[in-house]
Amino acid sequence: MKTLIVHAHPEPHSLNGSLKDLAVSTLEAAGHEVRVSDLYAMNWKAVVDAADFGEHATSPLRVVPSSAGAYDAGALTLDVAAEQEKLLWADTVVFQFPMWWYTMPAILKGWVDRVFSFHFAYGVGVHDETRYGERFGEGTLQGRRAILSVTVGGPESHYTDRGINGPIQDLLFPIHHGILYYPGLEVLPPFVLYGADKITGSDFEDAAKAWTERLLSLETTEPIAFRRQNFGDYEIPSLRLKEGLEVPGRKSFGLHVRG
Amino acid sequence: MKTLIVHAHPEPHSLNGSLKDLAVSTLEAAGHEVRVSDLYAMNWKAVVDAADFGEHATSPLRVVPSSAGAYDAGALTLDVAAEQEKLLWADTVVFQFPMWWYTMPAILKGWVDRVFSFHFAYGVGVHDETRYGERFGEGTLQGRRAILSVTVGGPESHYTDRGINGPIQDLLFPIHHGILYYPGLEVLPPFVLYGADKITGSDFEDAAKAWTERLLSLETTEPIAFRRQNFGDYEIPSLRLKEGLEVPGRKSFGLHVRG
Repeated sequence: MKTLIVHAHPEPHSLNGSLKDLAVSTLEAAGHEVRVSDLYAMNWKAVVDAADFGEHATSPLRVVPSSAGAYDAGALTLDVAAEQEKLLWADTVVFQFPMWWYTMPAILKGWVDRVFSFHFAYGVGVHDETRYGERFGEGTLQGRRAILSVTVGGPESHYTDRGINGPIQDLLFPIHHGILYYPGLEVLPPFVLYGADKITGSDFEDAAKAWTERLLSLETTEPIAFRRQNFGDYEIPSLRLKEGLEVPGRKSFGLHVRG
Repeated sequence: MKTLIVHAHPEPHSLNGSLKDLAVSTLEAAGHEVRVSDLYAMNWKAVVDAADFGEHATSPLRVVPSSAGAYDAGALTLDVAAEQEKLLWADTVVFQFPMWWYTMPAILKGWVDRVFSFHFAYGVGVHDETRYGERFGEGTLQGRRAILSVTVGGPESHYTDRGINGPIQDLLFPIHHGILYYPGLEVLPPFVLYGADKITGSDFEDAAKAWTERLLSLETTEPIAFRRQNFGDYEIPSLRLKEGLEVPGRKSFGLHVRG
């Protein structure tokens, strides 16, 4: 494998830092190539602004056409272009981050906002009577896989179906489906480490063992079976799931996973 | 009312900028006090790091105890302390932002990550047999209300129950429930403007009228009826919704809204 690890924690000597280091050493020992985007160490610019688009920034600034213009001209900033190159190099992308306020830290959201430019991650492909662009099962990153490795402060019971925070798979759906599956990545079930604020040495040994097992099976793990957009499950252009295709008992986000 | 508007768009002359300006003028004309945190104009620092906590940053950096130490000592950075002061001044908080990748822009997530410090927005109240801290219906911001005003590129059908993106109320649940309701804010139904990338002049007039109506009824609009954590609906400490309390047909996030 060629694995890109996108890492988002300010402290190298943290639980997240340790899990990232473990991923690097485990994958390299297994003969895989690994590159790391350590966003804090890179002092990653988190905020989209006109400077991202140089002379292609419209005035007033409209983000979508500016992003398209700069991408098409090969004029995105060097930091963004480098991340796009890493994504195209990789066949597997690991995201390591702490869940802060039920989603990713701002620095990682800023990586998404800037790297996932128009004509790279969205605005790809034609819109006609049978296709609504290449996304959700197609797109620039099709054929690659992604996995989230997330640390969570609270206990697992809070993130179950009746748990007060809602089930983890639904909290992560906007990332899994909306960010990763959208430009074509296949998404593996996440590695979630609960109780991260209270972890002890022996807890970490257990977690390290579990994470190692997941890392060594990245090539064989079944992805989440999200429905593809352009292959008959959805009305076009309303993109409503066709009647009769739903799995009984499923609602909301669950409708968009095959039975 | 005393309204704080937290605004997150890089271009003043944008749809989001126009909606923000409309909120200011409409509320002021109705006799309300308004303050604005225009995050791009403020050059808001989006990324949590050790500098946020000064001499209270632990080494290695652990975000939670560092945040607690700096908050308790009144030693958070001036930008963060100013935002906390505005939140305590306000009785109503409006968030104006474009939905980017199914959630808020990084600069606004960074406002949450930094302003919602330990002992201010989380880590508040005792944990015992009947209470699991003051959150989800209690907390520092209890008695205040919040509303999201969000622009969305796609059409509404994509964000309905069978729509490919999932229903808007579930996409926004991690923000509504996990970020706003958590520290005590009552959350009003959002104002969502679809098709934002293709809006015309007459569309904007319709949107401006609808937003004005929402702004002038902020004091009387019923909040989303999220369940309170410590008042009998949940087992403690598992925080699982008690059996029999669910509204028939509801699952996942919907379980945490009263019937």
